[in-house]
Amino acid sequence: MTLRPVLLACLLASVPLAASAATPYRSMQQILDASPAADWRTPDPASTLYLELEAGRVVIELAPGFAPEHVANIRTLARAGFWDGTSIYRVQDNFVAQFGDAEADDPAKAKPLGTARHKLPAEFERDAEGLAFEVLADVDGWAPQVGFADGFAAGRDPASGKAWMAHCYGVLGAGRNLEADSSIGAELYVVIGQSPRQLDRNITQVGRVIQGIELLSALPRGPEPMGFYQDPAQRTPIRAILLASEVPEAERTRLQLLRTDTQSFRDVVEARRNRRDDFYKRPAGHIDLCNVPLPVRAARD
Amino acid sequence: MTLRPVLLACLLASVPLAASAATPYRSMQQILDASPAADWRTPDPASTLYLELEAGRVVIELAPGFAPEHVANIRTLARAGFWDGTSIYRVQDNFVAQFGDAEADDPAKAKPLGTARHKLPAEFERDAEGLAFEVLADVDGWAPQVGFADGFAAGRDPASGKAWMAHCYGVLGAGRNLEADSSIGAELYVVIGQSPRQLDRNITQVGRVIQGIELLSALPRGPEPMGFYQDPAQRTPIRAILLASEVPEAERTRLQLLRTDTQSFRDVVEARRNRRDDFYKRPAGHIDLCNVPLPVRAARD
Repeated sequence: MTLRPVLLACLLASVPLAASAATPYRSMQQILDASPAADWRTPDPASTLYLELEAGRVVIELAPGFAPEHVANIRTLARAGFWDGTSIYRVQDNFVAQFGDAEADDPAKAKPLGTARHKLPAEFERDAEGLAFEVLADVDGWAPQVGFADGFAAGRDPASGKAWMAHCYGVLGAGRNLEADSSIGAELYVVIGQSPRQLDRNITQVGRVIQGIELLSALPRGPEPMGFYQDPAQRTPIRAILLASEVPEAERTRLQLLRTDTQSFRDVVEARRNRRDDFYKRPAGHIDLCNVPLPVRAARD
Repeated sequence: MTLRPVLLACLLASVPLAASAATPYRSMQQILDASPAADWRTPDPASTLYLELEAGRVVIELAPGFAPEHVANIRTLARAGFWDGTSIYRVQDNFVAQFGDAEADDPAKAKPLGTARHKLPAEFERDAEGLAFEVLADVDGWAPQVGFADGFAAGRDPASGKAWMAHCYGVLGAGRNLEADSSIGAELYVVIGQSPRQLDRNITQVGRVIQGIELLSALPRGPEPMGFYQDPAQRTPIRAILLASEVPEAERTRLQLLRTDTQSFRDVVEARRNRRDDFYKRPAGHIDLCNVPLPVRAARD
C-alpha cells in the first residue's frame, strides 16, 4: 500500500511527519484483528434486549448507567411479555423506527402495564461525576464535550457537571408526549438516519442497537405524516421483546463489544479520523461523534 | 402554545431575550406556508434526473455548478438510455445505495458507454469565486466554512479559495475506483445514512435526491461485504434513468425548491437551530450542516 508520506504530511497538520512516516496505516479491521481479547467486553444479559421480529432478531444494549429507572421499567415490561403482539407502527425516513403498543394513547384500548411503573422521572442527563468518560477531542457543535461512556456516544458539560447519551444512528430512545416526564420505556424508537442531536437532553435515551439494525432501517416508510401506519396491516408485528437473561443460553446471540477506554478503540478513532488508505486522497483530520464506529463482533470461545 | 420566555432566555444564550419574547416561534411548516412564491425555484429539467424503478420514481437535482463535466456525461448517458436494464447492486446500511452497471469493472461484460466520455477529471472541488454562498454560522468540524450554494449543502475554504458539495443524506455521488479521476458518472450512489463527510473532497458529487429517497433508503441491505448483492436476482432493477427535459411535460414530476438565499430559508434554519415548540425543553442553539432541511414542495400553478 502506497502511503505517500510527503503528501500526507501536507494534509495532516495534526499528525507529526515522523509519526505518519514511521507508523504504517492500519485500517479499522486490521486494528480490530490485532486487538487483545481484554479489549472486548460481553454485554450484561440483564441489560441486553432482543427485539424478535419475523425477519429476525435485533439486539440492543441497554444503558442503565444513563437511564436506570427507565431500564428497570423496561426489564419489568420485558419479563411480563408486554410487547408480545405489539408492532412497529411508525417508520419515518431519515429519522426513526418506533414501536410498542400502537394504542397506548387510547385508555380504552391500551395494553395494561401490569406491575410496571406508570410514571417515571425524565432521565435526560446524569451527573458526570463517577462516569468514566473517554473524551473525543474533535470539535462538536451540540455539546461542550463529547466522547464515550459505558460504550455509548455521549456529551458532557463541565459547567453543569452533567453527561448524557447522544442521539446517534442506532440509539434507542423512550418515546414521550409533550411532558418531559411522560416516557416510561413502553414506547421505544431507534434512530435510522442522520443523527438528530437536537433531541439530546430532550428525550430519555435507553440504549443502542448492537446487531440487526437493518431489520428496522430497511422497513417501508409509513405513508402518514411522521411515518405512521394508520392501517394495522401495514405495521411490522413484534413477536416479543425479551431480556437476554431470560432466554436459554443456547438461544442467545453471543456478541462482544470493543471497550471504548482502550488503545485499540483510540486507534480505530484515529484510523477513521485520518483515512490513509489508497482510496482517500484527503484525510479529513476530523471525525464527528456519530461517525465513530462502536465495533461489535461475534463472541469467541 | 406556551413559550416559557424566562426559561428560554436562560437556555438560548445566543438569542436576545427581547427577540425571543417579542417574536412568536414559527415552525418550519408555518414559515414555509407563509413564504412568498418568489422564494421558491423550479429545478431546471435539463438538470433533473428521474431514476425509474418498479416501485416508483426517484427525482434528483444535478449539480452542474459543482461537477460540470460529470453532469454533462450523465446527460449523455441518460439520453442514450445507458441505465436501461441496469440495477441497484449495492445497499449498505447507514451508508449508500449504489447503482448502474453491475458489470462495469469487467471489460468483457460492461455495457458500452456509447458517445459518453470514458475519462473525466476529478471534480472534488471548484473555485469559490463566482459561487453565491449562503454561510451557515454554526461550527463544523469538517470544513473551515459551511453553507449552501446552488441549493446544495457545501463547504468552503477561504485559504484555498475552493468550495465543494458536502456528503449529506440524499447526496448523489459518482462512484470511483482508487484513482481520483476514475469516475465518469456511470456508477452512482446515494447517501442513505449518517453523513459520511470524510468523503468530502474525495469523491465527485453530482447532485441530490429531492423526492423519493425512501425508494432507495428502505431497500433490503445487500448480504455481501459493503452491501453488495452477488446474486443478480436480489438486485433492484432500474427501468431507466431519464433527464426530465426528455420526458413529455405531462409526465414530469413538478417540484419546487426553497431558495437557500432567502429570508424564509434563514428562518427555517433558525427554527431548527432553536426549536421552541412545546416538545423541546432545551433548544440546541446549534445545527449541523446536514441536519438543515432543504425544503421541496409540489409545484403550484
